[in-house]
Amino acid sequence: MDDRELLKLVMGIVGRENCLDDCAVLPCGEQQMVVTTDMLHQTTDFVTGMTDWQIGWMSAAVTLSDIASMGAAPKYLLIAVGLDKWEQISGVMQGAKDCCTKFGAAIIGGDIDRHGELTVVTTGLGLVDKEHLVRRSGAQPGDLVCLTGTPGQAQAWLEGFLQYEKALFEPQPRVEEGQTLARGGITAMMDDSDGIALSLYDLLSVNDYGFAIDSSTLPLPAGVPGEGARELALYGGGDYELLFTLPPERHPVKGVQYTVIGKVIPERVVLVDGAPPERRGYQHRWG
Amino acid sequence: MDDRELLKLVMGIVGRENCLDDCAVLPCGEQQMVVTTDMLHQTTDFVTGMTDWQIGWMSAAVTLSDIASMGAAPKYLLIAVGLDKWEQISGVMQGAKDCCTKFGAAIIGGDIDRHGELTVVTTGLGLVDKEHLVRRSGAQPGDLVCLTGTPGQAQAWLEGFLQYEKALFEPQPRVEEGQTLARGGITAMMDDSDGIALSLYDLLSVNDYGFAIDSSTLPLPAGVPGEGARELALYGGGDYELLFTLPPERHPVKGVQYTVIGKVIPERVVLVDGAPPERRGYQHRWG
Repeated sequence: MDDRELLKLVMGIVGRENCLDDCAVLPCGEQQMVVTTDMLHQTTDFVTGMTDWQIGWMSAAVTLSDIASMGAAPKYLLIAVGLDKWEQISGVMQGAKDCCTKFGAAIIGGDIDRHGELTVVTTGLGLVDKEHLVRRSGAQPGDLVCLTGTPGQAQAWLEGFLQYEKALFEPQPRVEEGQTLARGGITAMMDDSDGIALSLYDLLSVNDYGFAIDSSTLPLPAGVPGEGARELALYGGGDYELLFTLPPERHPVKGVQYTVIGKVIPERVVLVDGAPPERRGYQHRWG
Repeated sequence: MDDRELLKLVMGIVGRENCLDDCAVLPCGEQQMVVTTDMLHQTTDFVTGMTDWQIGWMSAAVTLSDIASMGAAPKYLLIAVGLDKWEQISGVMQGAKDCCTKFGAAIIGGDIDRHGELTVVTTGLGLVDKEHLVRRSGAQPGDLVCLTGTPGQAQAWLEGFLQYEKALFEPQPRVEEGQTLARGGITAMMDDSDGIALSLYDLLSVNDYGFAIDSSTLPLPAGVPGEGARELALYGGGDYELLFTLPPERHPVKGVQYTVIGKVIPERVVLVDGAPPERRGYQHRWG
């Protein structure tokens, strides 16, 4: 049983339509509000060596990234912290606050709980004009498949390439980029936090078309030798880049650095260099 | 170090104004949106004997109660579940969904995490007309201090009065009552989930006046002998009744059953039968 199998089970209870995007979408006056929640905790998310400040930063960043991937502007964050050592709260809150401040959001509430294992749950709220909301669905055959930044760097640190510490410990959500891309006419978007391969399968699950990637176009983490870099780029988790589809006539979208890595194809399949990639990346597993 | 001391530390980082009410308040078109998040987990919140369904129900109920205490209508819930045994997810989600359905809200999103200890974080969003929003502040001298329901029942179960299992395991947030009271002209409100004594001190901290309670007017849990019932009513946690202040000329508010238990007084002090009660109730503690 992994995350995606469990999600199917949950869909049966709460309804499929509430599980298809990085955020839920609500009416809010003339605009739309997007809302998302993320749970992180010591064992599986906070790597040994991270400071409390970095733990707070990461906790905010992952949620702001979900908001960015809808084309929305993050506005508000709530943060629930479960912790055993109360001394950690200052660093965690300051890190979350600094990340929010950098990306235009404010912490407006939260909860504190005594907990054996440091656990942080952030809920983010963002706003977007109706015409600029972007979902995971909406890709059209012939659209370019594009990616901001260089994938695989966070995973590279986990595999010993320590120059990538900041990529893993202090992820930078693509907040400005998400909004610029939304205004630039992209058709679908999500963040690649579970890795590109899994993210493409996630896109496949909510689109009527498929995605064909040419791995030779993928930007690769520098300093990782041989086939390893491509492996990290395709299957590594912990990045917060934006993966999106764009009609060719709208390319390039000015003001955002991104790479064209493939095309949307009529067949409902994911292909990397002509063959389906493995369905693996960042996933929790239950026995 | 307890919850309230830690909250002061957090206030210094995120700002005091974001820590004064049961919910944060945001503009949302013509209305106001209230938002709140609550973290619950096995060791301190989910009593042995609770079913997965009851765990889900309670997790939703505590958050819906925070929304009710602002006079708002709960609309949306996000739920993050950290769990070790994936089999529990169905019961937890069904319980949360059933609670939401009963009180007019819908589950619109969430997260699932693998976690050593069952942990549930619910974030609730509600809507209220601007003129009906009620905060913890706003009490005026001469206002009646009032309470819905009978306090102490949840704590009574913990102390062996097993007829009160439903009070603890399946709390019923006062959703309709909160909105009716808000339209009825109350001046301040919160829920009494940490016990009446601590809740009165919480009200004191954000009001310019004090609160004098007559304990002989408190409804007491039936079947608890002697002084024990009064003790449970004043200091027991786990209830989700509404504690509010009401100008005498607006009393009684039709359509809500409540008891007048005291008065707002000019002196900034909490008094029970003329003396300050202990500052104890439901609190987490850190060493």
